[in-house]
Amino acid sequence: MSDLQRTLRVDLGERSYPIHIGTGLLDSAALFEQAIGSRQVMVVTNETVAPLYLRRLLDTLRTFDTHHVILPDGEEFKQLEVLNQVFTALLERHFDRGCALVALGGGVIGDMTGFAAASYQRGVDFVQVPTTLLSQVDSSVGGKTGVNHALGKNMIGAFHQPRGVIIDVTTLDTLADRQLSAGLAEVIKYGLIDDPEFFAWLEDHIEDLRRRDTRALVHAIERSCADKARVVAADEREAGRRALLNLGHTFGHAIETGMGYGVWLHGEAVGAGMCMAAELSSRLGLIGPDLVARIRDLVARAGLPVDAPENLDSGHFLELMAVDKKVRDGKLRLVLLKGVGEAFLCSDFDRAALEAVLKQRAERT
Amino acid sequence: MSDLQRTLRVDLGERSYPIHIGTGLLDSAALFEQAIGSRQVMVVTNETVAPLYLRRLLDTLRTFDTHHVILPDGEEFKQLEVLNQVFTALLERHFDRGCALVALGGGVIGDMTGFAAASYQRGVDFVQVPTTLLSQVDSSVGGKTGVNHALGKNMIGAFHQPRGVIIDVTTLDTLADRQLSAGLAEVIKYGLIDDPEFFAWLEDHIEDLRRRDTRALVHAIERSCADKARVVAADEREAGRRALLNLGHTFGHAIETGMGYGVWLHGEAVGAGMCMAAELSSRLGLIGPDLVARIRDLVARAGLPVDAPENLDSGHFLELMAVDKKVRDGKLRLVLLKGVGEAFLCSDFDRAALEAVLKQRAERT
Repeated sequence: MSDLQRTLRVDLGERSYPIHIGTGLLDSAALFEQAIGSRQVMVVTNETVAPLYLRRLLDTLRTFDTHHVILPDGEEFKQLEVLNQVFTALLERHFDRGCALVALGGGVIGDMTGFAAASYQRGVDFVQVPTTLLSQVDSSVGGKTGVNHALGKNMIGAFHQPRGVIIDVTTLDTLADRQLSAGLAEVIKYGLIDDPEFFAWLEDHIEDLRRRDTRALVHAIERSCADKARVVAADEREAGRRALLNLGHTFGHAIETGMGYGVWLHGEAVGAGMCMAAELSSRLGLIGPDLVARIRDLVARAGLPVDAPENLDSGHFLELMAVDKKVRDGKLRLVLLKGVGEAFLCSDFDRAALEAVLKQRAERT
Repeated sequence: MSDLQRTLRVDLGERSYPIHIGTGLLDSAALFEQAIGSRQVMVVTNETVAPLYLRRLLDTLRTFDTHHVILPDGEEFKQLEVLNQVFTALLERHFDRGCALVALGGGVIGDMTGFAAASYQRGVDFVQVPTTLLSQVDSSVGGKTGVNHALGKNMIGAFHQPRGVIIDVTTLDTLADRQLSAGLAEVIKYGLIDDPEFFAWLEDHIEDLRRRDTRALVHAIERSCADKARVVAADEREAGRRALLNLGHTFGHAIETGMGYGVWLHGEAVGAGMCMAAELSSRLGLIGPDLVARIRDLVARAGLPVDAPENLDSGHFLELMAVDKKVRDGKLRLVLLKGVGEAFLCSDFDRAALEAVLKQRAERT
């Protein structure tokens, strides 16, 4: 085990599980044997990841009765009909209730595999092997699984915790720069929510992360997972505190929907969304303009946009925010900032300030 | 409230819920208001039940924001694609996480609605209004929800407990005799598993039940639900004791599969299956032939077959039993009897005795 390897525990009572982070973990048969308590193992991956890492993983899993299924790659395939391919693969191999699924890929593969595991014979084990920065720092913790419906994202799913998460940071070597930056948006988010020390560390190390320095990546992923795990452990079913994880997301979802899914990456929309949340906080007198500048600077250095797209007018933007699923009883709730590491949930804010934030883009550009 | 109305509680900690049994409950706005904690309500039913009871139920639910979706009727529609129609209906009406689903129909509607509720936005409330005897005594308790896959029954699903079950026994007035008898198979099963007093009561009242005597029906349904609830409360996730509920089912599933689904009703196959389990128990010296005769007599008086179909040869029958999902590590586990009300799980039995049971049909007929 290299000195770079870290293990942290997500504390959820009897559903607690470890997250292992390090280099070369894809080849660690011992780690997988520890994580998987089953004989029958189904690896679920996609057409992009399979040529890169599937052989290696299957080789590592050779002591199990292992099969695999390769799904098409892309958010548009995150739907019930494609999910059914996983069930078909499991049933064709006569997989029983004692089997385990292994998700090898990014967030879409993780969400679909997790939901397949939650639903197959009413629940079997699964292990995550996330291969994108976004899925490593986001989907590894929280137990949210599911698929999209034609009428809404992530509308069908389950809370289902993995038995373990194995993060091999060397899989990031094959990740496109743009995808890496998108993952960094969520990393920055954890610092802003409740970890000011981590935010300061990111200001010093964002370039190290972009050039994929292993030591920096392991630290950032470990800290992000630990930060998220703390929030989730306090609120597994998303009643209160967990909503803070939506910092930048209500703005972000409006951008994603307004531009058409896939035009902006989720992380890019969240990056701009966090800057907008900071600006709104500043207009409401919660933080100073210097902090807004600091946040915009870090987001920009992460390779992310800091403003919403120009061709999304503020009226339409507001409409899109109003249909976000975090809206309750018609009230828009936003995560705002009182400082770095001091995010809070607010539904009682001056709407004129929000409209001003949505309009100011035009002035700046 | 009529003196015939009964309420029993399924005790599952924070997931506990009441089952109300009586006449005219479909019209009891108070009961539904107590069971449903939501404003938005989606009634899920099918083409057969809708013309009989949907208007009445919608009228009872008029104080809610109520919509409905009507699915095609039949086990062949218990699948992901049809389930998706429920999600579409929910999303078209902008139903949020605080909504509730109401299942109005038999077991297929209950299972599908329950799984839709388990999965919509990762879990919303649901209330069951079962309209067949089988669903009233079986699906009301246990929280098993799901759909079929082309390669296996009930292979996709979730454990999801309802917030309440409302059983109006007058809905049985429109149930076909054959369906009523099929429900009685499960009723008899509860007596055999661990309630000898109920078994004796059934021997005295089986004809009352077949002619739909209200008082007898309320008692049989209440006792069946209570018996099942006791087993489920001890073993919610089916690790051990809950397997006793499969009495007659491994034989029964082999009959259903062997004949082609729908040729024999599930309850008919279970009726014959219980008789076969009794005969095997007798051959193993666990019970005497007099008890086998008593069981066969009651099953026959319930209007159910007591022998497996002639055209299913014993070799094929054995193969079909071997692929049942209760098989673990290649070992066939059967529920056998040491007496009325003394069912137990057994995987260590003389295979020759089983083969003899499968063969003896031919001799008898």
